[in-house]
Amino acid sequence: MSSVRILGIDPGYDRLGVCVLDTEQGKETLVFSTCITTSKKESFEERLLKAGDELENIIKEYSPNEVSIEKIFFTRSKTTAMHVAQIRGVCIYLTQKHKLLMAEYSPPEIKLSVAGHGGASKDDVSFMVSRILKLDQTKNKTLDDEMDAIAIALTHSSHRKMKGWK
Amino acid sequence: MSSVRILGIDPGYDRLGVCVLDTEQGKETLVFSTCITTSKKESFEERLLKAGDELENIIKEYSPNEVSIEKIFFTRSKTTAMHVAQIRGVCIYLTQKHKLLMAEYSPPEIKLSVAGHGGASKDDVSFMVSRILKLDQTKNKTLDDEMDAIAIALTHSSHRKMKGWK
Repeated sequence: MSSVRILGIDPGYDRLGVCVLDTEQGKETLVFSTCITTSKKESFEERLLKAGDELENIIKEYSPNEVSIEKIFFTRSKTTAMHVAQIRGVCIYLTQKHKLLMAEYSPPEIKLSVAGHGGASKDDVSFMVSRILKLDQTKNKTLDDEMDAIAIALTHSSHRKMKGWK
Repeated sequence: MSSVRILGIDPGYDRLGVCVLDTEQGKETLVFSTCITTSKKESFEERLLKAGDELENIIKEYSPNEVSIEKIFFTRSKTTAMHVAQIRGVCIYLTQKHKLLMAEYSPPEIKLSVAGHGGASKDDVSFMVSRILKLDQTKNKTLDDEMDAIAIALTHSSHRKMKGWK
């Protein structure tokens, strides 16, 4: 199997976690990660545009082959869920515009895959992500949404073969 | 006041109603309307891309100045609402990419504006839209989502001055 580059996305309105992860023969390397934030002072439509444009710049710069994105999580408030769904739609549209194959995982699937059980805490996930990728955890304390994006990409890295992806 | 070109959008996943309406000194003229449909055989992400691309082609062809889009309607099923929210996000992103000023109206606001009361039926709205624009109703029987998009654009046409838009 040749190297595959995965774009991981944790769709959020206030904070959009994004990462680029290379996977080759079961070995994963983190290439890039960030948390796209937009100003609360701006209108919803301005924030949607800016977040989308930043995401597209990342896609153009790193040319990933596949995208792994979190499924919509129904337990949030309706308004939050609707905002998240709208930014998620933009993310999906842009990845499809750039011809990335798409996989989706639910929060429990991601936790199970990365930390061994579907009810793992954010700290458990963060700890395991750092361990798998040999990241310096002290540097990553504030990067929750980045960590989530990396966990989503790692989940796809370990599931893509089972799904029959080449 | 010079002529303003309004893009009306009724965001839907199976059917996306779109229209282009010119408004000048209280007189509205329908320039274009359509219902963008995508195949149920395709994946969600493919449908999102195709609907978005079709919408962008309409924006490029007609160069509207403003967009009027329906607010998310909460009484639908969660799954439907989430699908609608995602395609709505794509629509907003694309209109912002092309620098259209955006206004949003709820279904009751649209019904009130076009048909005189917030609880108007689809038929009432359709009848009034045809009357206002002098459309041949016999030709428009199957175009429910187009009619909704036109009603959304008409609502903005009659509200934009009150909102202080020039």
